[in-house]
Amino acid sequence: GFAMIDNHRELRVGYPEVVYCEGKTVDQVTDIVEHLNSKKVNVLATRASYHMYEAVIKRVPSAVYNPLGKTIVVQNKKKKETESYIAIVAAGTSDLPVVEEAFETARILGNRVEKIVDVGVAGIHRLFSKMDLIRGAKVVVVVAGMEGALASVVGGLVDKPVIAVPTSVGYGTSFNGISALLTMLNSCASGVTVVNIDNGFGAAYSASMINQLD
Amino acid sequence: GFAMIDNHRELRVGYPEVVYCEGKTVDQVTDIVEHLNSKKVNVLATRASYHMYEAVIKRVPSAVYNPLGKTIVVQNKKKKETESYIAIVAAGTSDLPVVEEAFETARILGNRVEKIVDVGVAGIHRLFSKMDLIRGAKVVVVVAGMEGALASVVGGLVDKPVIAVPTSVGYGTSFNGISALLTMLNSCASGVTVVNIDNGFGAAYSASMINQLD
Amino acid sequence: GFAMIDNHRELRVGYPEVVYCEGKTVDQVTDIVEHLNSKKVNVLATRASYHMYEAVIKRVPSAVYNPLGKTIVVQNKKKKETESYIAIVAAGTSDLPVVEEAFETARILGNRVEKIVDVGVAGIHRLFSKMDLIRGAKVVVVVAGMEGALASVVGGLVDKPVIAVPTSVGYGTSFNGISALLTMLNSCASGVTVVNIDNGFGAAYSASMINQLD
Amino acid sequence: GFAMIDNHRELRVGYPEVVYCEGKTVDQVTDIVEHLNSKKVNVLATRASYHMYEAVIKRVPSAVYNPLGKTIVVQNKKKKETESYIAIVAAGTSDLPVVEEAFETARILGNRVEKIVDVGVAGIHRLFSKMDLIRGAKVVVVVAGMEGALASVVGGLVDKPVIAVPTSVGYGTSFNGISALLTMLNSCASGVTVVNIDNGFGAAYSASMINQLD
Amino acid sequence: GFAMIDNHRELRVGYPEVVYCEGKTVDQVTDIVEHLNSKKVNVLATRASYHMYEAVIKRVPSAVYNPLGKTIVVQNKKKKETESYIAIVAAGTSDLPVVEEAFETARILGNRVEKIVDVGVAGIHRLFSKMDLIRGAKVVVVVAGMEGALASVVGGLVDKPVIAVPTSVGYGTSFNGISALLTMLNSCASGVTVVNIDNGFGAAYSASMINQLD
Amino acid sequence: GFAMIDNHRELRVGYPEVVYCEGKTVDQVTDIVEHLNSKKVNVLATRASYHMYEAVIKRVPSAVYNPLGKTIVVQNKKKKETESYIAIVAAGTSDLPVVEEAFETARILGNRVEKIVDVGVAGIHRLFSKMDLIRGAKVVVVVAGMEGALASVVGGLVDKPVIAVPTSVGYGTSFNGISALLTMLNSCASGVTVVNIDNGFGAAYSASMINQLD
Amino acid sequence: GFAMIDNHRELRVGYPEVVYCEGKTVDQVTDIVEHLNSKKVNVLATRASYHMYEAVIKRVPSAVYNPLGKTIVVQNKKKKETESYIAIVAAGTSDLPVVEEAFETARILGNRVEKIVDVGVAGIHRLFSKMDLIRGAKVVVVVAGMEGALASVVGGLVDKPVIAVPTSVGYGTSFNGISALLTMLNSCASGVTVVNIDNGFGAAYSASMINQLD
Amino acid sequence: GFAMIDNHRELRVGYPEVVYCEGKTVDQVTDIVEHLNSKKVNVLATRASYHMYEAVIKRVPSAVYNPLGKTIVVQNKKKKETESYIAIVAAGTSDLPVVEEAFETARILGNRVEKIVDVGVAGIHRLFSKMDLIRGAKVVVVVAGMEGALASVVGGLVDKPVIAVPTSVGYGTSFNGISALLTMLNSCASGVTVVNIDNGFGAAYSASMINQLD
Ligand SMILES: Nc1ncnc2c1ncn2[C@@H]1O[C@H](COP(=O)(O)O)[C@@H](O)[C@H]1O
Ligand SMILES: Nc1ncnc2c1ncn2[C@@H]1O[C@H](COP(=O)(O)O)[C@@H](O)[C@H]1O
Ligand SMILES: Nc1ncnc2c1ncn2[C@@H]1O[C@H](COP(=O)(O)O)[C@@H](O)[C@H]1O
Ligand SMILES: Nc1ncnc2c1ncn2[C@@H]1O[C@H](COP(=O)(O)O)[C@@H](O)[C@H]1O
Ligand SMILES: [Mg+2]
Ligand SMILES: [Mg+2]
Ligand SMILES: [Mg+2]
Ligand SMILES: [Mg+2]
Ligand SMILES: [Mg+2]
Ligand SMILES: [Mg+2]
Ligand SMILES: [Mg+2]
Ligand SMILES: [Mg+2]
Repeated sequence: GFAMIDNHRELRVGYPEVVYCEGKTVDQVTDIVEHLNSKKVNVLATRASYHMYEAVIKRVPSAVYNPLGKTIVVQNKKKKETESYIAIVAAGTSDLPVVEEAFETARILGNRVEKIVDVGVAGIHRLFSKMDLIRGAKVVVVVAGMEGALASVVGGLVDKPVIAVPTSVGYGTSFNGISALLTMLNSCASGVTVVNIDNGFGAAYSASMINQLD
Repeated sequence: GFAMIDNHRELRVGYPEVVYCEGKTVDQVTDIVEHLNSKKVNVLATRASYHMYEAVIKRVPSAVYNPLGKTIVVQNKKKKETESYIAIVAAGTSDLPVVEEAFETARILGNRVEKIVDVGVAGIHRLFSKMDLIRGAKVVVVVAGMEGALASVVGGLVDKPVIAVPTSVGYGTSFNGISALLTMLNSCASGVTVVNIDNGFGAAYSASMINQLD
Repeated sequence: GFAMIDNHRELRVGYPEVVYCEGKTVDQVTDIVEHLNSKKVNVLATRASYHMYEAVIKRVPSAVYNPLGKTIVVQNKKKKETESYIAIVAAGTSDLPVVEEAFETARILGNRVEKIVDVGVAGIHRLFSKMDLIRGAKVVVVVAGMEGALASVVGGLVDKPVIAVPTSVGYGTSFNGISALLTMLNSCASGVTVVNIDNGFGAAYSASMINQLD
Repeated sequence: GFAMIDNHRELRVGYPEVVYCEGKTVDQVTDIVEHLNSKKVNVLATRASYHMYEAVIKRVPSAVYNPLGKTIVVQNKKKKETESYIAIVAAGTSDLPVVEEAFETARILGNRVEKIVDVGVAGIHRLFSKMDLIRGAKVVVVVAGMEGALASVVGGLVDKPVIAVPTSVGYGTSFNGISALLTMLNSCASGVTVVNIDNGFGAAYSASMINQLD
Repeated sequence: GFAMIDNHRELRVGYPEVVYCEGKTVDQVTDIVEHLNSKKVNVLATRASYHMYEAVIKRVPSAVYNPLGKTIVVQNKKKKETESYIAIVAAGTSDLPVVEEAFETARILGNRVEKIVDVGVAGIHRLFSKMDLIRGAKVVVVVAGMEGALASVVGGLVDKPVIAVPTSVGYGTSFNGISALLTMLNSCASGVTVVNIDNGFGAAYSASMINQLD
Repeated sequence: GFAMIDNHRELRVGYPEVVYCEGKTVDQVTDIVEHLNSKKVNVLATRASYHMYEAVIKRVPSAVYNPLGKTIVVQNKKKKETESYIAIVAAGTSDLPVVEEAFETARILGNRVEKIVDVGVAGIHRLFSKMDLIRGAKVVVVVAGMEGALASVVGGLVDKPVIAVPTSVGYGTSFNGISALLTMLNSCASGVTVVNIDNGFGAAYSASMINQLD
Repeated sequence: GFAMIDNHRELRVGYPEVVYCEGKTVDQVTDIVEHLNSKKVNVLATRASYHMYEAVIKRVPSAVYNPLGKTIVVQNKKKKETESYIAIVAAGTSDLPVVEEAFETARILGNRVEKIVDVGVAGIHRLFSKMDLIRGAKVVVVVAGMEGALASVVGGLVDKPVIAVPTSVGYGTSFNGISALLTMLNSCASGVTVVNIDNGFGAAYSASMINQLD
Repeated sequence: GFAMIDNHRELRVGYPEVVYCEGKTVDQVTDIVEHLNSKKVNVLATRASYHMYEAVIKRVPSAVYNPLGKTIVVQNKKKKETESYIAIVAAGTSDLPVVEEAFETARILGNRVEKIVDVGVAGIHRLFSKMDLIRGAKVVVVVAGMEGALASVVGGLVDKPVIAVPTSVGYGTSFNGISALLTMLNSCASGVTVVNIDNGFGAAYSASMINQLD
């Protein structure tokens, strides 16, 4: 029983190195970003506090911070932007941090992105007025908290893969995103897959893979 | 510290006596229905098996069974039907047992009822083609399983009290109705209240109270 | 498959615009309230900190704060108060924040409201001494934490729609309101519907719809 | 570190031997009951099927079966009945199996018992008409399913130890007794302690200990 | 259907007034304690911060604080101490806050109390060396966190009512007391009843009722 | 606020009509399949019992049953098979029913499919010997129960979108698929999205969308 | 990034092949056992019904069935029994199926085993009378349901690795073994590790590894 | 029924005294460590804040702090290090605090330890390059958060007892370690046992017992 394997991560070109900052110290984050930057690769740091950014910027001046999405991006190589695009659709303004994390991830991976926000199902005509833009996408990311019904409604209206991101927005029985997660997993619309609560990064990473398939 | 109370149940006229059959024997159900019938009041038995009905009909020939809703109804007094109506809106055919329990309850309480079924959000145009009928109601009961998104969509489209009934329809993470229940409790649309999973009776009872307010 | 829909929210007259402040910045809340106020509509902001209120009052001097209910109200149009009233019944003093949120919501929607507080079931004679006032209401909102038994007791004593609000009051197995929520969903009294934990706003919104039906 | 212990069970006189039949075969139950009977002690078998009883009665003709409580009792020694009594209070007829298990347990342990059933809080006047009998007890066992509010109401009205037994009666969010259990653990009335769901045996055993203290 | 009830709380003599301070402001607690003190009754305030005590002591100089148990006691009437005693048995030092809440409650209710602490089952010989003192009690309160096995072991060794208090001590899968709670509810030893997590007050209140029965 | 929407389902050509048989009667399923067949479209019925198939085959002789996957397929139009393929990777033989539901769904939607089964992580060399076939796919469906670790391992080894299907295989703390579901949602490998427990249909539907993007 | 791995399973000598029968058909089990037997290795099949055994015995006459443990064993090679032994300690008779699964697993792996059953903590003197035998073991497996306190008590008394197996024995809040599982994971005694609910096989497999270390 | 027991803890030589600091005050920790040190035994304090260490060091100058593992160690007696070793294998850098707690525990108990960190399954070739070191151990401790798949993969590759420690690392559906815990309990690889979430101490204590068996 012997087998040989190789690891694809080493072989991919142009992919950013990703740093997950939660649970790391400011020093650790700074060291890692500086080290990666010295290798001239693209860097994406998620869940980064402003405090971390302030430390990073001193050593990597080209670092850019998205305060809502809590991302640090260092773009050393420019990938050509895709022609097809990812639509990121969100229910309410409290979902914006997750939208922005997804946006930055999709962008540094080289994707064209269209954001369609504040189209929750309580006022469904807002969603319908944006249906053309949503249907034009190659893949759709739906971000929603509370009861997360937006994923089902969008899933029923488009004929493209939908990646649903439950958010921890809500209170009481929203149980920090569990309600939205269950809604999305049980979606009566076909073609909806789901990622972890608040995982804008993961949704965009999968969406990018799909958007760049040929 | 003394206080006097009276119990309103004794004072209400025309209300049916309600028998909850789950966990009762066939004999117990038959005895109770026969006894109530002898008092010439209306009787509604819920969660009644066909077997129970067969035993009841021998002693109370006017008893009527709804096999989908699992209700036995004995109408001894005819209440004048309301002019305003209750709309019962349901997502899929598997939700019909709960729809029928709600329907029989609302009917024996004297309400006009309109049923609008198979309008789940996966094909939302089916719902829109029925919006006029739904909006014409005084109160709306929404019955849905799986992810239960229908309650939010309807709640956002009508300006009437919505009573949502989660059903145990689904599998896996529907958790026998918990997913739909959480969706409904977290509805981003205002004006939605919720009852227990599969509780068509309770929803119709509350809807009847509202429909008959003046 | 084409369908036309309209959105009822645009068509309703006199309804306040509602701002949910949790997860918004002070600046965002201030901007939104000022903007809505400039349109001369009524404004209700819920879950607003005192800090938010201090910022709002500088730009909208007619804004009024309820520190217990954490609401900001701006009344630009006066609706005629209803003759029928909503009774808000609460178990203990720790439930008062939810009572006040419900109260402010019901008031800005134009309803007469009667508050009956500190009538928990541990000393049930306190409740009985208030039964006449409660029974006089068109619709009853019951607010209770811990085991939430008050909803069942009130539901058994009145012949009106009861909207139950579980609160997160309690410790240990109260599980931040889950115990009260389950109690209310399983109420053995008919005519009780339920909203999300601590959702005084939602209960009052539904109650107002019912109180203003004709 | 040496210590000597003795086991009190060997030293108690007149206590019945208790057999928990769930998960045992008919043969095992029959053998155990026959063996204990041969020692001329009192025997209580709980969770016994009728099938088990039929096998036991052939070898122990004095065995008595309670079909609702699913108990087999063999009384070889007669203990003098207590003067003080245990009140067993129950909400609905579906709770009767648990009531009967508690009743048989309390009886074989030598206690006078008063049963007060069908006094659920939905029609609270039924409970009040029995308050004198309940208050006369030395200890009160309250048996209730669904939302279990009866324990709180009784606990608020009597000045005696209350032992609450949640039952698995209900559906949906009653979660097989969890709703009633949480209600009882969070009771706002002081003096209420709780046992496992459907554990009529355990409640009566503790109640007997209390009733026989001097 | 009319019924008359009285409330037993008004009729009991010598019972303290109890104030539950969690969720109350310092001012509210101070006002309530001062008011009750002016009626010359005994007062017990639970879950009181040291800050609350500092405010109370200025207006009620006879108030006494237990910093571990977080109780304020004002003894205006001295009840004769019982001859029989309550044993409070605890597993570890982290359970002491709950032990002290129970102790203060039992004391102000007039009971003799014996505390036996640091006798967790990991070193079971420590428990055995205290068995005589525990068995001499009329009723035993067992306080334990983590896996809560102490309640079962004590329940198996004594022939008296045992009231078990799960505590929120532990981490990970102790789930803030749920593990200990489940252990106690499922105790294989008969005669164990359970109260809410960390509810030293409730356990002592019930224990006092039992200790003072005659 | 008016908006016009159309529903994409009507507009898609060649898509099968899907019938979800759970909770439907044999008669209902037979009627629906016969009706759809008469329209000469492709039909896929999932969760169909053999009993249902026996009734269907009498009226639709071209219906084909997959006993493991519990699907009925009626192929009236032949879609050209894709050149790119979907890899369906499964851990153990007990996962085969879900594999087969996914397989039949993907096939009737026109996809080339490669099945790689019995490659659970307990013997990881089995997986490695199949890596070339897995990496050649355009999209990978991973089916696993118990702890579901296979999704993470595959996700780390391939550079394609991975859709993970937790199955209800296992016992005890597998909690009917919850353990595998959580594993997949928390996968440390990027590019993994998740569907409901046992939802082979949904995974294949999404995979088909991705496989047929251009 | 290339790496070479080998799989240790192929390299181990004398280990039995293990078949997990749950979710397999009678035919599948028979085929697998016959095939393995033909390779002259030892075979252990767990969770095998008597029905499966009847089919196996026809083709593999040396197969031996343990009806309580639901195991089929085919011993083709005799491993020398260890001198050191594994102690399997169990609380009650309902835990015996798990005890037997562990016993058969340990035996076919070549271990000497001592069973000590019916020593639950409700009568702790039974356990103490067996302490010498338990302490003589090299590793101890503790099997217990309900509240599972036995693992903590044994863990506190022995100085050897303890592997705890929660069983699904119990009702109500035992939650099919969750209560015992949590108890064991939170054990205040050091040296206790835990396996899945009812997993006698896994506990014995680990115990065997430990018993055969040198 | 009399029995004599002794407690093994008193009889073991060279074992450290262990202090669990969570929930203790700085003063309590300082007093305990100083007292134990005066008895010239080895001392291990876990979950100790730096603040606690600063107080301890003033009175016990030989105390050593591990800031990541949050342990204080005082080594008064030197035990001879074992020749065989414990491998501690960890998925990511956020798991390091638990690794260090395990490391310090294993060391003070006299074990040789090898740490292999940052070998999570997302890049499985990193793990394979360390397999020789892992396979050389007598017992393996695997530390992993998020989905915890590392335990299954390692368990499938080594033929030694594996003790798995789930960590609370992750977010959303990692549920503070529950996801990793369930993964480990359901591991499809044999020979894996599990301890409480973040319980590096307990894993190392059991591993030490195994490593020092002879
Ligand atoms: N219905 C019951 N619920 C909980 N525990 C019970 C019940 N009936 C008997 N027991 C307990 O189970 C013990 C007998 O168990 P066993 O020896 O397995 O028959 C008795 O001593 C009681 O402590
Ligand atoms: N620590 C406690 N846990 C549970 N209930 C308590 C506690 N302390 C007081 N109580 C109860 O709370 C009531 C007082 O509540 P309140 O009127 O809100 O101060 C008392 O009558 C007790 O029944
Ligand atoms: N196995 C399945 N799991 C989840 N959804 C399914 C499954 N099979 C079919 N569906 C969905 O159920 C719909 C048909 O439901 P129905 O109209 O009730 O037969 C299809 O359009 C699919 O979206
Ligand atoms: N009772 C059991 N509980 C958990 N795992 C088991 C059990 N019996 C066997 N196994 C595992 O299941 C594997 C065999 O699975 P299978 O190839 O599906 O028959 C064995 O190698 C064991 O690791
Ligand atoms: Mg779609
Ligand atoms: Mg609405
Ligand atoms: Mg009512
Ligand atoms: Mg009372
Ligand atoms: Mg006892
Ligand atoms: Mg990948
Ligand atoms: Mg030990
Ligand atoms: Mg292994």
